[in-house]
Amino acid sequence: MSSTIPPGTAEAGAISPQELLLAARNHGMPLEALAYDVTPVGMHYLLIHYDVPRVDASSWRLEVDGHVAHPLSLSLDDLRARETVSADITFECAGNGRALLDPRPISQPWVLEAVGTGTWTGVPLAALLADAGIGDGAVEVLFTGLDRGVEGEVEQAYQRSLPLADALADDVLLAFGMNGGPLPPQHGFPLRLVVPGWYGMTNVKWLSRITLLDEPFTGYQNARGYRFRRDPDEEGTAVTRMAVRSLMVPPGIPDFGTRRRFAEATAQVIEGRAWSGAGAIESVEVSDDGGATWQAANVEPASGPHAWQRWTFDWRPGAAGEYELCCRATDSVGNRQPADPPWNLGGYANNAVQRVPVAVA
Amino acid sequence: MSSTIPPGTAEAGAISPQELLLAARNHGMPLEALAYDVTPVGMHYLLIHYDVPRVDASSWRLEVDGHVAHPLSLSLDDLRARETVSADITFECAGNGRALLDPRPISQPWVLEAVGTGTWTGVPLAALLADAGIGDGAVEVLFTGLDRGVEGEVEQAYQRSLPLADALADDVLLAFGMNGGPLPPQHGFPLRLVVPGWYGMTNVKWLSRITLLDEPFTGYQNARGYRFRRDPDEEGTAVTRMAVRSLMVPPGIPDFGTRRRFAEATAQVIEGRAWSGAGAIESVEVSDDGGATWQAANVEPASGPHAWQRWTFDWRPGAAGEYELCCRATDSVGNRQPADPPWNLGGYANNAVQRVPVAVA
Repeated sequence: MSSTIPPGTAEAGAISPQELLLAARNHGMPLEALAYDVTPVGMHYLLIHYDVPRVDASSWRLEVDGHVAHPLSLSLDDLRARETVSADITFECAGNGRALLDPRPISQPWVLEAVGTGTWTGVPLAALLADAGIGDGAVEVLFTGLDRGVEGEVEQAYQRSLPLADALADDVLLAFGMNGGPLPPQHGFPLRLVVPGWYGMTNVKWLSRITLLDEPFTGYQNARGYRFRRDPDEEGTAVTRMAVRSLMVPPGIPDFGTRRRFAEATAQVIEGRAWSGAGAIESVEVSDDGGATWQAANVEPASGPHAWQRWTFDWRPGAAGEYELCCRATDSVGNRQPADPPWNLGGYANNAVQRVPVAVA
Repeated sequence: MSSTIPPGTAEAGAISPQELLLAARNHGMPLEALAYDVTPVGMHYLLIHYDVPRVDASSWRLEVDGHVAHPLSLSLDDLRARETVSADITFECAGNGRALLDPRPISQPWVLEAVGTGTWTGVPLAALLADAGIGDGAVEVLFTGLDRGVEGEVEQAYQRSLPLADALADDVLLAFGMNGGPLPPQHGFPLRLVVPGWYGMTNVKWLSRITLLDEPFTGYQNARGYRFRRDPDEEGTAVTRMAVRSLMVPPGIPDFGTRRRFAEATAQVIEGRAWSGAGAIESVEVSDDGGATWQAANVEPASGPHAWQRWTFDWRPGAAGEYELCCRATDSVGNRQPADPPWNLGGYANNAVQRVPVAVA
């Protein structure tokens, strides 16, 4: 398999062999799993830049170093002995919706499935950094994973930094558990970062080192990847928190090959989830005519401040025919999903309304 | 997203939007997971024709009916109270390798990742059928899942039949457990069929009914889907047992966007797995020159009669440059993987040798 389409460009044509290789190994959450408060392991989305490392927990250590008073070296047992917390937290890949853009940015070709909610268990990062003693002048915290690869012709471990104030937020966790069990290998065993409200690339997996920096990190994933730009030569702006979004469980039943949906002409409940990195969900609206008219859905409370919110809508298709179901959410600070996709070269944060054609008979 | 490429045809061009929708929800096993004897939940491949049903185990029943003396209706507790067995069993999708065919049959566009090994726990089917009393003249056993959809313009529950003699093999299980826990929803909760040695479509998930038939089943998945044919009008022959295959963990590290591999010019161990539905693995050979020359790998015993076998190979790349690593297995009855893909309209059983280009520096 070969292709002449390089990453970092956009393409109006069909999916390339490289994009297919990415799609075959990374996986989305089938949208019927929006019915679960907490996504079962194996249905939660996964985006893995390089290979899943196989980590021996008995020899693994977390190093905390850089601009700190007391560098730390901690075993998994050391971390488990600390005060732990658990929370339901929704993750979404920054590239969710990328394959619906035109032209399509070349990378993991997500349609709409790059989302999931886990019950994450671990230790608050702020308390650990307090133990290490944050040095005066520290401005960022750098997280380094054990996964290695090449990106933009740079060989690298996967590394992302956070501004110090964001890293010290009291809901930021170093998680060693998911959904009541240990972290599965593909979710970062033995330890990963969890930053509620931010897009998934923030949550560094297979964490091996936390480094306090006294100047901003200039590595690939912050300075070149995950930036909003329309031209490769722009500096761009950082991708950070999740844009407001709602998704529905597609009604009816699918055709295997075409994924077309067929539903009955009877009253039925449409259900879905909505979330935003900027606050709670204020409202969800549903349309069955492609967005020409909208009606309010019933939005339920979340299981925690960083978990998606369930919504339901009593749909009464009037007659047999073709419908286009859409949903759009508005968050508590007034952000609403747009009708048309916002475009950028990385294909990030496309939170345009979901459109589900349904044949009613 | 729309496309003019219908399922059931083949296409020389790039991946269609419908194929991408399939690739986004079904998922392969990242090949580095070949390093595990038992594939962790969430890394095992999944091929789901319709939607994952959400099943209430407290009201769920397994019905055993048709050509039997004593129809049965069993709860999950009834099944758990029976004598149970556990075994490591390798599954592979019949369509694994489909996207490497030219022209490419239109369906789930697997590259090479549609494989995994689970520890499956459940009750032997033969003992259950003996309790029901198999009627004289029964010829097939039909398995019906709770998942519904449309395929080939036929609305259907997912159903597959097995010849009676195959269903009565002493290693066929009705499984309610995977890898030490309950079945995850996406693997068929609360109960699925497990038929060792056969391609994955045999292992009906979300099982609700087992029906003894006194004539062969003529439903879609046996009579139209999963048949070897080169022309849509042929009757074709049934897809049954897994062809012999070996796969390797790609050496070195990947480029995120291109998936190109980079390795160091030092001695290193290549590892992989091999399996066959026709018997044990007799040998695995490795080539680093695209199949021009081959050397024997070391093949280890399996953890059970139906689990893949680990193999290792000491690779000593002579110098920096471009290599093409290949592996091929031969099973105990003499089947060997071909150099070139066998082609059929469904894209089934493409067991051609894996080819992994590696840049050594």
